[in-house]
Amino acid sequence: MNKDRAEKILSRPANADAVLISDPAAIYYLTGRWIHPGERFLGLLLSRTEEPKLFLNILFPFEETAGLKIISYSDTDDITELLAKHIKRDWVLGVDKNLTASFLLPMQKAGIARDFVNGSLAVDKTRAVKDEEEKQLMRKASAINDEAMGIFRTLVKEGISEKEVAEQMLGIYRSLGADDFSFGSIVAFGKNAADPHHMPDDTKLKEGDVVLFDVGCVYKGYCSDMTRTFFFRKGPNEAQKKIYDLVRRANEDAEAMIKAGVRLCDIDRCARDIITEGGYGEYFTHRLGHFIGIEVHEYGNVSAAFSDLTEAGNVFSIEPGIYDPETMGCRIEDLVIVTDEGCEVLNHYPHDIEIIG
Amino acid sequence: MNKDRAEKILSRPANADAVLISDPAAIYYLTGRWIHPGERFLGLLLSRTEEPKLFLNILFPFEETAGLKIISYSDTDDITELLAKHIKRDWVLGVDKNLTASFLLPMQKAGIARDFVNGSLAVDKTRAVKDEEEKQLMRKASAINDEAMGIFRTLVKEGISEKEVAEQMLGIYRSLGADDFSFGSIVAFGKNAADPHHMPDDTKLKEGDVVLFDVGCVYKGYCSDMTRTFFFRKGPNEAQKKIYDLVRRANEDAEAMIKAGVRLCDIDRCARDIITEGGYGEYFTHRLGHFIGIEVHEYGNVSAAFSDLTEAGNVFSIEPGIYDPETMGCRIEDLVIVTDEGCEVLNHYPHDIEIIG
Repeated sequence: MNKDRAEKILSRPANADAVLISDPAAIYYLTGRWIHPGERFLGLLLSRTEEPKLFLNILFPFEETAGLKIISYSDTDDITELLAKHIKRDWVLGVDKNLTASFLLPMQKAGIARDFVNGSLAVDKTRAVKDEEEKQLMRKASAINDEAMGIFRTLVKEGISEKEVAEQMLGIYRSLGADDFSFGSIVAFGKNAADPHHMPDDTKLKEGDVVLFDVGCVYKGYCSDMTRTFFFRKGPNEAQKKIYDLVRRANEDAEAMIKAGVRLCDIDRCARDIITEGGYGEYFTHRLGHFIGIEVHEYGNVSAAFSDLTEAGNVFSIEPGIYDPETMGCRIEDLVIVTDEGCEVLNHYPHDIEIIG
Repeated sequence: MNKDRAEKILSRPANADAVLISDPAAIYYLTGRWIHPGERFLGLLLSRTEEPKLFLNILFPFEETAGLKIISYSDTDDITELLAKHIKRDWVLGVDKNLTASFLLPMQKAGIARDFVNGSLAVDKTRAVKDEEEKQLMRKASAINDEAMGIFRTLVKEGISEKEVAEQMLGIYRSLGADDFSFGSIVAFGKNAADPHHMPDDTKLKEGDVVLFDVGCVYKGYCSDMTRTFFFRKGPNEAQKKIYDLVRRANEDAEAMIKAGVRLCDIDRCARDIITEGGYGEYFTHRLGHFIGIEVHEYGNVSAAFSDLTEAGNVFSIEPGIYDPETMGCRIEDLVIVTDEGCEVLNHYPHDIEIIG
């Protein structure tokens, strides 16, 4: 049980006396154990007055952990009755945003707490500020991703399909020490690069194609995520060069303005203005970035709709793109850690135009 | 929009004036469209007085469908306010068991309905009784699975790994007309067969090993699921033969007692008694079966804890197993459709002891 993280959650100004966390990723964050309960109840109860308690079906093995009391139950137990023994009736209980009605409605009918509120924000905002141990793991996950990109670029050859390239990636990640993909790799050739969510298919590579890799791995529980856009055997034409340079500048200028205390929407604005002034605003169809850590998409994003201020320790992606089906699709993405003075860019694979194959 | 299915749901004695369905599988059941909304709200509102309405983010394309009104919203809309325009304040609203607190709590605070109850049972119990169209698709999915099993048995050879066998399966399913796996195939050699949830790893096959395949595919939206246990190049010894025969008898006697109006727990009991009387009760560590259809695990199961009566049109698995790490792990699983007079076993791959390789 990570006491320091639990205390940070409880110290956030919340409108609740206790939080009942049921998100497996948040429970991993606090306990170091992944539990996938399926349809069964899983809850970690944090309160200011009592020790942390984990409500866990006996079907799931869990080693005793210092500072955490395990409350075991079986399939024949009534979850509401069990929780009522540990939750005070005069508490306002912060429940997980993803707690399902099948559990919440009976808790409400039985009145096991005075009121029920969404308690996820305290957890999510704590997770959004990475501690030293987490930063170290995210640096390593991105270092592996940089190294993997250097290998992925060598996999291309005339006539190979996107799927054939994608199928080689997991083995390469594992050989570099990663545990798994952090998400399904995007490998996009030619016009497919103009679809930001393209999934690898049987499209075959040909000279003059753009090659876009949006890839990431998991290292000891933490995710990486990077995009680079290459040219296969033929450099960009003028129109393509203009797009590439705009995206690169949007990425680098946005990264240059990041430091603690900046509004996230202003970072998005910086990149979007560059692309819009270059004439391609309508082709930049998504937010600039998302927070990342144990999950590839965590609470928080870099978008016009998100005006929170950055905090030192935030980790998010900066991934401007232009998706012009006539000319090219292009995206350049790095992860950054916010610091008091600026930011640490976790990806070191260059942004330069690169002809491969 | 499948009016017949919607009417069946609304005709079930429910304690609600309307149901708000958010389960993508149930929405597929009613509309024929799979929508994966991620964190965004998705809801299909069925009431006795008004036309069905689908609340859908504009990000998700959806063709106009006869008998279904689409209520589009965007990321800047307030879901609770939107729902309040279509839900009467004096209704008791049946919400989906999986509706999350992030949506349910604001609906409750705003009082958009008089009360909120779990409305999933009416949907789940309707889905548990397959109509003719569904039965036909499930027959075909299982016919493909039978044919695939006949091919899978030929993939084994000395020294091949479980993973190497498993990796060939999707291609075989697709060549037979299936769309996808219905779940991650279990391929277990030797002692691994004694772990009922073993996932294929690098274990290599050797003479005398047991080979267990628990496999299934999806055909036009419907799942198959079957298990067979083979012997590689050497027949069973006496102890293994005893286990195999017990599991086979448990499977066949359980299937022989199935017809409409039988308690599901009694079917489990029939199989369990045979295995217990044979001396292996402690090694049969799971329920006898689960309901199946659009999802590989649907509402309803064949277990000691489930005393509902079978209805004609129920489809579930019968999968007794004995997991004795010293002697062998063995499971024999078929799908069945309940009829008024008995049951239709969907799998025709034989139950006989078979030496392969």
